[in-house]
Formats: sequence, C-alpha cells, structure tokens
Amino acid sequence: MPTPTPLALSGDHMTATYRLTGDRAQAEAAARDICIEQTVEFPEDLIGRDDIREQIVGRIARLEPAGEGCFEAVIEFAAETAGRELTQLLNVLFGNISLKPGIRLERFDLPQSLLAHFRGPRFGQAGLRSLLDVHDRPLLCTAIKPMGLSAAELGELTYKLALGGIDLIKDDHGLADQSFCPFDERVRACGDAVERAHEQTGRRCLYLPNVTGPADQIVERGRRARAAGAGGLLCSPGLAGLDTMRQIAADDQIALPILSHPAFQGPFTLRPDEGLSHGALYGQINRLAGADGAIFPNYGGRFSFTEEQCRDIVRGATCDMGSLAPIYPVPAGGMSLARVPELCRFYGRESILLVGGDLHRHGPDLVENCRKFVQLVQQEFAA
Amino acid sequence: MPTPTPLALSGDHMTATYRLTGDRAQAEAAARDICIEQTVEFPEDLIGRDDIREQIVGRIARLEPAGEGCFEAVIEFAAETAGRELTQLLNVLFGNISLKPGIRLERFDLPQSLLAHFRGPRFGQAGLRSLLDVHDRPLLCTAIKPMGLSAAELGELTYKLALGGIDLIKDDHGLADQSFCPFDERVRACGDAVERAHEQTGRRCLYLPNVTGPADQIVERGRRARAAGAGGLLCSPGLAGLDTMRQIAADDQIALPILSHPAFQGPFTLRPDEGLSHGALYGQINRLAGADGAIFPNYGGRFSFTEEQCRDIVRGATCDMGSLAPIYPVPAGGMSLARVPELCRFYGRESILLVGGDLHRHGPDLVENCRKFVQLVQQEFAA
Repeated sequence: MPTPTPLALSGDHMTATYRLTGDRAQAEAAARDICIEQTVEFPEDLIGRDDIREQIVGRIARLEPAGEGCFEAVIEFAAETAGRELTQLLNVLFGNISLKPGIRLERFDLPQSLLAHFRGPRFGQAGLRSLLDVHDRPLLCTAIKPMGLSAAELGELTYKLALGGIDLIKDDHGLADQSFCPFDERVRACGDAVERAHEQTGRRCLYLPNVTGPADQIVERGRRARAAGAGGLLCSPGLAGLDTMRQIAADDQIALPILSHPAFQGPFTLRPDEGLSHGALYGQINRLAGADGAIFPNYGGRFSFTEEQCRDIVRGATCDMGSLAPIYPVPAGGMSLARVPELCRFYGRESILLVGGDLHRHGPDLVENCRKFVQLVQQEFAA
Repeated sequence: MPTPTPLALSGDHMTATYRLTGDRAQAEAAARDICIEQTVEFPEDLIGRDDIREQIVGRIARLEPAGEGCFEAVIEFAAETAGRELTQLLNVLFGNISLKPGIRLERFDLPQSLLAHFRGPRFGQAGLRSLLDVHDRPLLCTAIKPMGLSAAELGELTYKLALGGIDLIKDDHGLADQSFCPFDERVRACGDAVERAHEQTGRRCLYLPNVTGPADQIVERGRRARAAGAGGLLCSPGLAGLDTMRQIAADDQIALPILSHPAFQGPFTLRPDEGLSHGALYGQINRLAGADGAIFPNYGGRFSFTEEQCRDIVRGATCDMGSLAPIYPVPAGGMSLARVPELCRFYGRESILLVGGDLHRHGPDLVENCRKFVQLVQQEFAA
C-alpha cells in the first residue's frame, strides 16, 4: 500500500438522534452498529488505522431510555463524512440503516460548516408572505383537478379560484405531462388565468404547476413555467428525488417558491419505530432540499397522520437550522371548510391551509365558495 | 367553463396488484379508494363528467382473498394517466396511497405502449456478461473501503482486487466526493489500477465509482468517470432519485452498466403489509430506472431480508417486462466466503455475488483471498 495519508478532519460534527427498539443491550448494539454501518461499513477489527476509527466511525454521545422498550441514541458523525452534498448527508444519517428494523431517525443537527453548503428554502415563510403581501392570516391554497380536464378547463378553474381570493393555486400532483393535458399548454392557460383575475381584483395570486418529471427535463420545465406566468412550483421529491427539488430551488433562472408534495414518501413515516420522524422528513429534510412549504395529510382527513405527528412537522419546519429559513406547514388531504376554524387554531397564523375537493361541494358558484373560505379564515384572525 | 374536451384514450391499461389488509368489506373499500386516490383524487360524486369517471378513474379487475386477513386486488389504470414518465408512472402506482396503512404494491404489468417510453437497462444480464466475457459462473463483485482511505490507497486496493480476479470492483456506497477522498482523484486512481492489473492478467475487470451526488452534477460525474477509466457506475436511487438513475443510464456519452444500491430505500420493504414488495422495488422499478444489477442485503447477513424476499427480488429482476432486459440480482450485506457455495446454489449462475469486508479476513494477502473467492465459485459451476 502507498504511505497512508493521515486524516486531519475539522472536528466539526453533526448529531443525529435515533429511536431504537429493544432493551438496553439491544439498543447499545444498535447504536454501535449505526456508528459503523453509516460510515466505514467495514468489520471494526479489520480497520487498520486508528485515525479512521477515531475520526470517521460515528460516536455515541448519549443513550437513554425513551419509554417502554425503546431508547434514544444521539450519535455524532464527522461533518466531512457527508461531503458537501444532500445525497451523502442523507446517506450518513439514514442510508444503510434504513434497511434495518427497529431504528428511526427522529431529528438531526448540523454544524454551520455543513449548513453552509445548503441554500435551503429560497423564500421561506417570510419570503412567501411578502410575495403575496398577506400578513394577517394563514395563506390559502387549493389544487386544480380532477385529472382528465383539458388545459383550457383547468385554466378556467384557476381563473375562478383566483377571483375568489385563493393565494396559492397548485396543480393536483397527478397532473404531469399527459397527452390529454400537456404541461406547457396547462401552464400557459393557468398562468394567463391568474393574470386575468389579477387585472380584475388587484390581488396577488400564485399559480404553482407540478414540475415533477424526468430528471433531464425538470429544470427546463421550471424555467418555461416561470416564463409562462407560474408564480411557484409544486414538486414531489419522493418521485423526482430530494436533490432534484434542491436543484430547482437553487436555480436562479427559476427563482420561484416551491411546495413539496409527499407522494411516494409514505412508507418513511408509517411506523413509529422505523423510518423517519414526520418532522425530520417533511420538515428538516424538506428545508435542506429547498421547499418553502411542505404539504402533508392533516390529522382527521383521508389519511392516518395523528395530531402529534402534525405537530412534529411544524417543529421540523420551523426549528432552528442555522441559516435555513423556517418553512410553511401545509396541512391537506381531504380538508373541509367546516374544519377551517379548527385548523386555524391548531396551526396558527404561520401556516398554509389547503382545501381541495371540498371547495366544490358548497354550491355551484366556485368563486363564492372560495370567498367563504377566505372569510372563515379572516374571522378567526380578526383583531 | 369552456366546452369540455371529451377524452379519447387508447384503452391500453397497466395493471397493478396490491395486497390489502382487512376483511372483504375493508379490502373493497381500499381497492375503490386506490382507484380514486391514484387518479382523479376528487370526490367521486362531484366529478361532472362520465368520460373522466370511465376512462381516468382506476378499475378493479379482480379482488380475491390472499391469506388470513388480507386480499389481493388487481387494479387497471389507463396507460395515459402515467404520461410518458417514470415519475408519474410511480405516482399512479403508489403515490398518495403510499401514505395509507395496510396497502402494499406487489407487482405491476405495463402495456407495450407505455414500456416503449422506457429504455430500461442498457446492458442487462447478457450485455454485462458479454462486457466481462465471463460465461460459465456468477459474476464476482466487491467494494473498496473503508471510508477514510485516500484515493491512492483505494487505488492500490483496487489493483489487488483486480489482480485477484474480481469482475466488478465498486466504490463503497459511502464514498462520495469527500475532502479526504475527492471523486475525480479516486476515479483516476482506481481506473488506472484496473488498467494496470489488466496489463498483467489480460482479464477484464470493471471499476464502478459511486456517482450518487447532486442532481446538477451527476451526469457530468458519470461522463468524467468514463473518461477516467470507469467500467460501470454505482448509484443509490433512494438518495439520488430513481429518475436520476434512469437519466445516467440513458446518457449515450456515459453508456456504462449501472449497479443500484438500496441505501435510504429500506422503509419501502420493511413491512409485509405496507410499502412495496421486494420484487417490485429492487426488481421491476430498478429495471424501469435503468439499473443492470440490483444490490440488496442477502438473507442471513447483517440485515433482515428473508429467503422468500430475496427470491422475490430475483423474480422482479427477471420477470417478463416486454422490451426491458432482465437484470442481475446482487446479494450482499455481510456475505462471507464460507457462504459462497450456498449462495451459488440459491441464486444460480445468473447472479452477481458481492463479498466485501470478509475478503480482508482471510489472511493478509488480499490477492490470494480474491483468488480463493473465484475458485470457490468455479468449483460450484465446474462441469
């Protein structure tokens, strides 16, 4: 072998907190396993170099009981193991051990030397609010659907929703580039629609087309969308890749706010003892990956998230991450106008409330139904 | 609204088979829910158009008991709902319902009109075998590690492994572009190493660097790697995005075989009643996304996959998918030389056997240990 190059790392480290299922001996073994599996992935007794053992292998900083049959382990990894890349950062935090049962990543904390490589959300809560010039209540969002409508029909729908006072009108996440509703045609129709409505109302309204699509086309779609009047973008990082969302967020020619959609990410949070916590995935990781708002299925809708899990998303979306701005929680998934007061109380002003299909349920006048949505929210935040 | 544009879809459909937990009534409700949630995502009674209800909403083709407390549902979706894109295809198959408990995607079948949009594996089993000119036994693979070694040290390791007769030498999936081992430097050192060994042995050997990295750099890394002597690429689609792997597989300037690594994908297959089947994810979806071989943790190693789950991966890697070539199962994850005969019998000739750290455990002469690995396999396949 050539003369070994001794490691001289900075000493900066990230810390990751894991929930480990089992008794103390099992939890200790799992914690030790994480230290190895996530770094050297090599039999410890065969590592011939002390510097690798001391500087690359993870270190258990804390291991404590965290309830019946489970422990919480805090593990430190050298900042340099993550390189300067989201992909490798996620790999160190949860790559191989994602394949092992009984381990859940709860949260993580990155040193500024690592955070410096991530721009994070371009707008964040404050930037998005200032784009819309709405300051006294949650922002209101809806989706255009169902799949099967033509671009012109979706444009007309967008026009009515914008007239009715919705702040953010997004594509349904199932609208991609299908033959019956091509992406470019839809973006033009809906971009024109928000502009027409703006001429009448003077209000700002953002249309967010779904750019989730082929890796080699997504940036171009984002740029064309901006040129055609899009005011933001919808992206499903579970389908397109987390780093692909980061790429479109960082693109200075796009420079639009991004809402992330949780499609295909469900298995990460279905079990309390495995995968990722809701706050880690939909909050912290989304922020690293450039989302300005994170759509998720609210408690009590068509999905099974609990109140506590939704609170954890708010935590992850807003907790201190150094230079990374807080982002909006966007509760969705079968929300109804009837629940608006409750949602306002639960999430408070710093949220985006998304009501989809239910807006169509309150009589044939969609514009009027939107106004009702706006009024319901305004009432909750009246002085 | 503008005059509705009536849908005139081809009638081609894909079929997806789901395992649903519950009694018959619950399974029927879940199957019906999938038909709606994965397409229109809109209250059925509010869909104003028969053509959307008939052509866009999914259709239950079959619902049958599949064991104690579970059913199997076969659901048909119009081919056009998936557009021409992997991202939207995955969205229709498992986007929103991934967020619901008790639903697992077992397998799927695509019509040729949809498959035509996917090149799939560029090499597949036959192409990879012909690149290596090895025809009478499984292909042999190992990984260079541990993280912390310099590029020069990893190059020296690669040289020995190639001298010893390994067919495919891949980066450990944790080697990215860290300061202590930059990507380009490593690829040059290891590319040179396989070339030096080739001059001595006359044997072919492929070095596969890990290109998993930022979305805006990954294609360039692949192209530079090829220029520097890489014979294939390693990619973790759970980190980089499935469609990003497809992009590098489809790039004609890269044109190298790809092994996929399962990092960060664990939660998809941890539970028998949720997520994706092993065969669907590591087999079928990997093929759509351009992998030529799928690395996965073998039964009885450091991870928890069962024999049956590993067999399901072989099924997904090799089942009929029209124009898409079969790909190699690559069992790994703590495999030892002692288990080689068993692995040969279990997976047969059409596999890639990956032994990592254990190659370093059989005495200090790594070249000799590799030769032992080759001999063990040759013995099993001697006439």
